[in-house]
Amino acid sequence: MTPVMLTEQELDEIYTFAVQLGKDAGKMLLEAAQLRFTGTQTADLEVEEKDSSVDIVTKTDEDVEAFIKSSIEAKYPHHKFIGEETYSKGASRSYLVSETTPSWCVDPLDGTVNYTHLFPMFCVSIGFIVAGRPTIGVVYAPFLNQLFTSCRGRGAWLNETQRLPLIRNPIPPMPADAPSGCVFSCEWGKDRKDRPDGNLYRKVESFVNMAAEVGGRGGKGGMVHGIRSLGSATMDLAYTAMGAFDIWWEGGCWEWDVAAGVAILQEAGGLVTSANPPKDIETAEIQEVKLGSRLYLAIRPAGPSKTETGREGQERTVREVWRRVKALEYARPGA
Amino acid sequence: MTPVMLTEQELDEIYTFAVQLGKDAGKMLLEAAQLRFTGTQTADLEVEEKDSSVDIVTKTDEDVEAFIKSSIEAKYPHHKFIGEETYSKGASRSYLVSETTPSWCVDPLDGTVNYTHLFPMFCVSIGFIVAGRPTIGVVYAPFLNQLFTSCRGRGAWLNETQRLPLIRNPIPPMPADAPSGCVFSCEWGKDRKDRPDGNLYRKVESFVNMAAEVGGRGGKGGMVHGIRSLGSATMDLAYTAMGAFDIWWEGGCWEWDVAAGVAILQEAGGLVTSANPPKDIETAEIQEVKLGSRLYLAIRPAGPSKTETGREGQERTVREVWRRVKALEYARPGA
Repeated sequence: MTPVMLTEQELDEIYTFAVQLGKDAGKMLLEAAQLRFTGTQTADLEVEEKDSSVDIVTKTDEDVEAFIKSSIEAKYPHHKFIGEETYSKGASRSYLVSETTPSWCVDPLDGTVNYTHLFPMFCVSIGFIVAGRPTIGVVYAPFLNQLFTSCRGRGAWLNETQRLPLIRNPIPPMPADAPSGCVFSCEWGKDRKDRPDGNLYRKVESFVNMAAEVGGRGGKGGMVHGIRSLGSATMDLAYTAMGAFDIWWEGGCWEWDVAAGVAILQEAGGLVTSANPPKDIETAEIQEVKLGSRLYLAIRPAGPSKTETGREGQERTVREVWRRVKALEYARPGA
Repeated sequence: MTPVMLTEQELDEIYTFAVQLGKDAGKMLLEAAQLRFTGTQTADLEVEEKDSSVDIVTKTDEDVEAFIKSSIEAKYPHHKFIGEETYSKGASRSYLVSETTPSWCVDPLDGTVNYTHLFPMFCVSIGFIVAGRPTIGVVYAPFLNQLFTSCRGRGAWLNETQRLPLIRNPIPPMPADAPSGCVFSCEWGKDRKDRPDGNLYRKVESFVNMAAEVGGRGGKGGMVHGIRSLGSATMDLAYTAMGAFDIWWEGGCWEWDVAAGVAILQEAGGLVTSANPPKDIETAEIQEVKLGSRLYLAIRPAGPSKTETGREGQERTVREVWRRVKALEYARPGA
């Protein structure tokens, strides 16, 4: 079966539609959050705050996904829709992004814990995929008033006016001694089992290798410039596209967590490959990540230095990260 | 010597002045950052990006501090001024906050690494201290357009319109099983020495205890709801005052990193004490932190539950954190 091809004009129209959809959905998220500021909802409920806030978040999540889904179905009835809520409740957990049918990959609310606690790092994430490739990305964080958008061939943007990455005359090369000098973004995630070889310990060992002084940790010390954890894979990717984060490394995300962010990062000039080091770190080909692999390593857009191209600097950084991280265990049910 | 007392009217005037000063200083930070977006400065310099960005940041830091200092000296010539840049270059490193003279405690740019990389979590931080107590706090993060302000007795505010904490009808109690259910904010910091008993390993052990599943880590597993690292002590405190973070635990900060944030958090109803556990964790009196102690544990504003007051819930949370963290080693030179 041949993938459906879209004309440039069709793509423009879909992009305009997706951006408006993101703005409207983000507004819904913020309005639901603001009801909690004023206590309109919580005060009415005779339950503990924790329970009530979880209920409100679940309902908001479902309402926003239903709004996005119905809007897409009305406008593009032949497109496929993959949403977090829809998928979580479905019987199948196999890989769902279509290679042939244009697909929407949507997380109505990424950063759910942040939303529950009203930490501003939450967003709606809308990705549009053509022939298996992330093609349009819309990420809107309404509490921060930050809108990230991209469409293949049309650039990646912050608030529709500032092109990504932000520093671009020239775009800085990767530091010569990366990961030193880099801001490293990572997340602790939900798998916190106290198993010696579990993901928690694999992550912590990796974080400490990236953090420790150069020469420390048996030569693995990366002395990154800073370590950041925001609690939202989508925001991590958006800030990597912006150039604010140099490296993002994570396992466990699903395709709706990353589809829009990957589209934006790739369009900005970033690289996304697998979190887990291959057998031959020094020579392995650095492949583009497969959406749905659940293992991600992202490098920011990079310009050339006097001795290497931007891509060479990114690939060098990938290998330096792989030297320092442990493989993570995130299987795909049904895959 | 008796501390200088200020009338309520004098305090109102100083508060108005401090808020405007924060807005103006934040604008300077953002304008200097925007020069980097467009490449006006970096393109002119024949040096590596890393070096040039550090130069720009240092210059901005100094310019903004000089602006704040001269504005204060012109308006309040008898007040004391303690600024990061001034202090770092001074001969004395002893404790400088005065118990008698009203003092300004200023960090012109908190989150310097973030500013260098253009990650939005940077801010100007202006604290005003009367009789040794943080009395006014102004924190402005211009890239986020978030202004946090407080004055003793006048409430703490986001953007001058939304009272802190944000959820306040009612203000939620601390979770019954805290730190479970809490968002835990912490920083990796600059001390990354590969010493088995150094601060890096003390922090990591503490982080893992807070993160791990309940029952794990020999009973210390705290299963916090999320772990966040922003790279700015001031922003950590501001978001704790907002209620977005439940717990902030950190060592190494200086008084200008925290003076404004502590003022805002305390006025919002939060608690700030020492990061390091006392000998008798279960019964030790929970004392208010001394500015300049370099060891901080902050708990968000909390309302009462059916079984305890807000303060009782905060103190219970403090003891639960102390049970899980290692003492940090941050001495005060000259103290």
